[in-house]
Amino acid sequence: MGAPNPIGVGMIGYAFMGAAHSQAWRSVNHFFDLPLRAEMTAICGRDQAATERAAAKLGWQSVETDWRALIERDDIQIVDICSPGDTHAEIAIAALAAGKHVLCEKPLSNTVAEAELMVAAARRARQHGVHSMVGFNYRRVPAIALARRLVAEGRLGEIRHVRAQYLQDWIIDPQFPLVWRLQAERAGSGALGDIGAHIVDATQFIVGDRLAGVTGLTETFVKERPLHQSASEKGAVTVDDAALFIGRFGNGALGSFEATRFAGGRKNAIRIEVNGSLGSLAFDFESMNELHLFDATSSSRTGGFTRILVTEPEHPYLKAWWPAGHLLGYEHSFTHEIADLLADLGTGNEPSPSFEDGLQVQQVLAAVVDSAAGGSHWQPLPAVTQNAA
Amino acid sequence: MGAPNPIGVGMIGYAFMGAAHSQAWRSVNHFFDLPLRAEMTAICGRDQAATERAAAKLGWQSVETDWRALIERDDIQIVDICSPGDTHAEIAIAALAAGKHVLCEKPLSNTVAEAELMVAAARRARQHGVHSMVGFNYRRVPAIALARRLVAEGRLGEIRHVRAQYLQDWIIDPQFPLVWRLQAERAGSGALGDIGAHIVDATQFIVGDRLAGVTGLTETFVKERPLHQSASEKGAVTVDDAALFIGRFGNGALGSFEATRFAGGRKNAIRIEVNGSLGSLAFDFESMNELHLFDATSSSRTGGFTRILVTEPEHPYLKAWWPAGHLLGYEHSFTHEIADLLADLGTGNEPSPSFEDGLQVQQVLAAVVDSAAGGSHWQPLPAVTQNAA
Amino acid sequence: MGAPNPIGVGMIGYAFMGAAHSQAWRSVNHFFDLPLRAEMTAICGRDQAATERAAAKLGWQSVETDWRALIERDDIQIVDICSPGDTHAEIAIAALAAGKHVLCEKPLSNTVAEAELMVAAARRARQHGVHSMVGFNYRRVPAIALARRLVAEGRLGEIRHVRAQYLQDWIIDPQFPLVWRLQAERAGSGALGDIGAHIVDATQFIVGDRLAGVTGLTETFVKERPLHQSASEKGAVTVDDAALFIGRFGNGALGSFEATRFAGGRKNAIRIEVNGSLGSLAFDFESMNELHLFDATSSSRTGGFTRILVTEPEHPYLKAWWPAGHLLGYEHSFTHEIADLLADLGTGNEPSPSFEDGLQVQQVLAAVVDSAAGGSHWQPLPAVTQNAA
Amino acid sequence: MGAPNPIGVGMIGYAFMGAAHSQAWRSVNHFFDLPLRAEMTAICGRDQAATERAAAKLGWQSVETDWRALIERDDIQIVDICSPGDTHAEIAIAALAAGKHVLCEKPLSNTVAEAELMVAAARRARQHGVHSMVGFNYRRVPAIALARRLVAEGRLGEIRHVRAQYLQDWIIDPQFPLVWRLQAERAGSGALGDIGAHIVDATQFIVGDRLAGVTGLTETFVKERPLHQSASEKGAVTVDDAALFIGRFGNGALGSFEATRFAGGRKNAIRIEVNGSLGSLAFDFESMNELHLFDATSSSRTGGFTRILVTEPEHPYLKAWWPAGHLLGYEHSFTHEIADLLADLGTGNEPSPSFEDGLQVQQVLAAVVDSAAGGSHWQPLPAVTQNAA
Repeated sequence: MGAPNPIGVGMIGYAFMGAAHSQAWRSVNHFFDLPLRAEMTAICGRDQAATERAAAKLGWQSVETDWRALIERDDIQIVDICSPGDTHAEIAIAALAAGKHVLCEKPLSNTVAEAELMVAAARRARQHGVHSMVGFNYRRVPAIALARRLVAEGRLGEIRHVRAQYLQDWIIDPQFPLVWRLQAERAGSGALGDIGAHIVDATQFIVGDRLAGVTGLTETFVKERPLHQSASEKGAVTVDDAALFIGRFGNGALGSFEATRFAGGRKNAIRIEVNGSLGSLAFDFESMNELHLFDATSSSRTGGFTRILVTEPEHPYLKAWWPAGHLLGYEHSFTHEIADLLADLGTGNEPSPSFEDGLQVQQVLAAVVDSAAGGSHWQPLPAVTQNAA
Repeated sequence: MGAPNPIGVGMIGYAFMGAAHSQAWRSVNHFFDLPLRAEMTAICGRDQAATERAAAKLGWQSVETDWRALIERDDIQIVDICSPGDTHAEIAIAALAAGKHVLCEKPLSNTVAEAELMVAAARRARQHGVHSMVGFNYRRVPAIALARRLVAEGRLGEIRHVRAQYLQDWIIDPQFPLVWRLQAERAGSGALGDIGAHIVDATQFIVGDRLAGVTGLTETFVKERPLHQSASEKGAVTVDDAALFIGRFGNGALGSFEATRFAGGRKNAIRIEVNGSLGSLAFDFESMNELHLFDATSSSRTGGFTRILVTEPEHPYLKAWWPAGHLLGYEHSFTHEIADLLADLGTGNEPSPSFEDGLQVQQVLAAVVDSAAGGSHWQPLPAVTQNAA
Repeated sequence: MGAPNPIGVGMIGYAFMGAAHSQAWRSVNHFFDLPLRAEMTAICGRDQAATERAAAKLGWQSVETDWRALIERDDIQIVDICSPGDTHAEIAIAALAAGKHVLCEKPLSNTVAEAELMVAAARRARQHGVHSMVGFNYRRVPAIALARRLVAEGRLGEIRHVRAQYLQDWIIDPQFPLVWRLQAERAGSGALGDIGAHIVDATQFIVGDRLAGVTGLTETFVKERPLHQSASEKGAVTVDDAALFIGRFGNGALGSFEATRFAGGRKNAIRIEVNGSLGSLAFDFESMNELHLFDATSSSRTGGFTRILVTEPEHPYLKAWWPAGHLLGYEHSFTHEIADLLADLGTGNEPSPSFEDGLQVQQVLAAVVDSAAGGSHWQPLPAVTQNAA
Repeated sequence: MGAPNPIGVGMIGYAFMGAAHSQAWRSVNHFFDLPLRAEMTAICGRDQAATERAAAKLGWQSVETDWRALIERDDIQIVDICSPGDTHAEIAIAALAAGKHVLCEKPLSNTVAEAELMVAAARRARQHGVHSMVGFNYRRVPAIALARRLVAEGRLGEIRHVRAQYLQDWIIDPQFPLVWRLQAERAGSGALGDIGAHIVDATQFIVGDRLAGVTGLTETFVKERPLHQSASEKGAVTVDDAALFIGRFGNGALGSFEATRFAGGRKNAIRIEVNGSLGSLAFDFESMNELHLFDATSSSRTGGFTRILVTEPEHPYLKAWWPAGHLLGYEHSFTHEIADLLADLGTGNEPSPSFEDGLQVQQVLAAVVDSAAGGSHWQPLPAVTQNAA
């Protein structure tokens, strides 16, 4: 492969996701052979001084304080949206209209209506060779990517069960303050949208199928919280602390899902299991370099779950990294995401997951909200005509 | 304690549960100091020759082929019902009327209606000092008994989450024949009643609370099976292969439950997790001598789940057995169950779990069936006025 | 198989090992189809009243207070020696001379010299159809028996590494008193003979090979202890608290061994790993129903250690017990040991492990002691001409 | 902290270690607030074209093909030596003499004699404010750094046992060719020096003590290998495939060590356990974000090993990274190493581990070689007068 062509990137937002994306932008071309070379052209934030500090810290070459200015710059071809969910639709639609490729952090938006507008914009842009991607980074954890491949190869046979939990505990203390993620008007939803979205996407990605209906319930355990750290005044928590739902996939598999911020001792535990007619898979993000595979066709005398250490060169993304047994971490999922994006943009392939995929996840989340609001009744989901996941 | 008084036991049925109970009856007085000493007086089965072989194999002194004869014998004070679920009500009600204490395997019955009759019979008998118990043996796994104690002591604070799965895989092969457990008229239900019942009871036991409502779905993945091993003729499977439900407990905790016989590679995996405001518990029957405890009040620098090897003399039932680190197995749960029964009968205490407890579990299962049959809508459960679990 | 012939058993000693053996004698014929049926004829202890209590508790029909009387009884054909190690030689030699089969707990004796006399006695008795066995019960843990079979089948190829640890922590507290197990004159040695013996035997059993030489070191961390619980007077600890040694097996494998009573948090952790040219095995007694198998010939894409839940009917001893997934415990190893013994006595096969096997383990332990005493130099072990292990 | 001062770095070698170091140099200032900012000034290799490709790939600004030219450059203040072990001494001594700080990959050298010369050079340079460090990167795995702190705080009491294994399997196939790492003249030793060195350093670092004597054995299982991939001609393997040794630490703890490239299924398994009078620690690099801690003073009813997920802001190095539960990987150990180096250089502190530390590890390895060569006799190690580790 010849020297890759430079491509300018502008990133909006520089909090947790901005820092993670920056490490990926900085690293990706040092590990992957790609047709494009990312130029970290500009970073955008509202506060000039703070944004300049972020640019220095994170390695961006220039600063904008108005995202509209950023998306107009000629030296930027990719807009990476890492700002809160309520800003996604407006920025993404404008960027696509300006002819910029868009990488948008999940959730795609806070509402289905916004997501639908974003999909429409993405479809228009696609006709002009302008592409978009939603940032479900866990798809790029090698063990999850391997899981999908094994299912696609038929190693699990017909899928019967999907069970997934995303467990955190960071607001278990009732004195933890009312941060923006606990306010519906800014965050859209609570555990459901923040982390439930990830396991909906990851499981659908792994099994290559989509939920056809759900019934769910949500709960807010701590209904009021201090307005600020150690404030005595309290405000109402307007999002869910936890969401549980069960459902059916298009091809008949049963699904069980749970997202909570009240599972004491679980910091970022994404646990996914899939059972099929020929085998099973199990994954836990707390051991993210492992995938456990059961082959139902093996002898019962020596059968069982095999713990695959997903660090071999044969494993997805691993050839770019270290020798077998040298583990990867959380941030690598973003480097892989951006490697895939640059590969697709360089070859003209449509990146995945698309905005349509992001919309479909929002539809699932909305169905859970509707079910829970209506007394946990069944909510069918729209059939998906195009190829799933 | 002086020499214990002998008490005659008559057991009905000698299949899997009969063998497990027999080992418990044979062993219990050799390990536990109890006010009563079990005499294995008679075993009952329909076939004389087969029952005699079972008596010899399992250590029973005599044989009956009519359970009505067995419950009339003066040398029998305890009737242990290990026959299939559709026989429980008739036998138990008659035995109680005959003044015999009854230990009845779970499920208490195949229907709520039968269970209600059994409860009525148990209440009448209780007035005459005749006691009854339903055989939810997993309560007597030391790690589960310890879990209950820790919750009761407040170590977990207010309970927020209960999640439980009972996963098996013994009918994953579609050529596995149509045994009686797959026929509704004999088994009542499939995975739901057979194994789902255990996790409903065990979780309610651990948290000391009861489900207040559920919504669920069930599925039969393999709808027809060979009538016999290697038969070409097929018959309809009339029970569920898998059941999933979510619900709320009386005190507000959320519950997630799954029972399936289609989880390839999981043989008898009972997995229970509880999250509370002050801590969490996790249990997996595949490592049945362990309980994992998280204390949310510990320092985050050295905190985490502590793997308790439940083999210390301070642990429930353990003083009777071996030094620390020498594991117990599945069958010990029955020995503990019978030790508790004999202790209660000797002291006049009401044994637990009662038939009322068994009825309540049937009500939960019936609510899941109703919810699933009606399109996965919410099913409230009757409030329990007496002390739960 | 017809009704088994009765065979009378007399047991000497009724402490921990006596209780474990009793449960095995009581249970064995209820689970295994055997040519002989054990009669629990008599138990022997020095104190009449205490022995009578033990007989009642453990299920023995009569009592002796002189082991010489016991071995002379015509209604006893098997003598089961569960008394301390310093009594083994005298009793076993006399019992064999009296024509009784002998099951002798490990260690075979406290010294190599005694063990040699016992072997000579066993050889003489064998010529008259009188058999003997040393009680290395861990060979009968199903996962360990399976491990041996897999190695024997060549699944691991040529063996390169054996590593084994037996870790306990019951004397970590320096105030724990000077019990007899800490006194050389009665116990022979400390961790080395008590628990090190088990891993020497178990690993040699698994790999079908024997140690050819060792170098080791031992240590007594707490050199003085209270003479009794809460006594102020102290006495010298005269055995090792811990023993480490490395060595070579006859066929060239390297071995690493560690036995200690000072591994805080490890109660009875027997950990064994074997690496061969074609695969590896790993076992941990804290998860005694599991064996982990690595097949080096499998694809690196889906390869890894497979966790075999050793509860299938195809696994050693398991057909006699419960359905798959229903775990066994510590005591089952003794039931299996006695099942094998009765099967061998009924068919005239030589039981295994033999007294020769017990002697060979003592020789290894003695070599470790000699190495440690001499400044950790290499100690070759006698070549074994007969078939190993 | 104000803007950090730039400091020029020149790196020699660009294979596995060069790539890992490059990622660390590129990343370190983006995560850690440091007094110095690394400039990736030049990279050095023998082949101009290959080195230029490496510079482009790894992010270095210029290229040298003679390390002597590199160390003379005025724009370079740190020389990072990632070339094979037989080159370390000459380069490091020259670089230090040229007034450059040196970061030298482990092993410090292939021989004790060379290491001693390097220590002498480091001492001379230190007097002029020129510093040196040897790259035992595993010290900077957060779980290992936490382990050291817990021991230093006295949480484990008096240390009794250290056991460590470094297990790999990459040359288990006898057709794997005779690469330079299997040739003594270039690699110095085999598993012993390559990976055994790491566990010697890491365990001494954790317990804050040093080995006082050892006895060991080494083995070369496959004595001849193809000269190249699929070559028919073979050459002799002149290094060890595996090395085992046991020993005593200065303060009386016992140590057990094993390094092998023949443990099938173990890719890079560094397993370390420490037992003390008050507690225990366990670590496995295959789960590198976890540390298991046992507190012997806790209640036996709820005690056990606590699995600490070492991703909290209170844990070493973690404040620079992601929220709790978001794992780090192998490469982060190098970023931490270089963060510590830059912090020390900026403040004038002596970096650690020093060349003296590297020499001491070489002395241990040499003692193992001597012991093994002489028939596994005891080899005392020189007492260390200065503060250990």
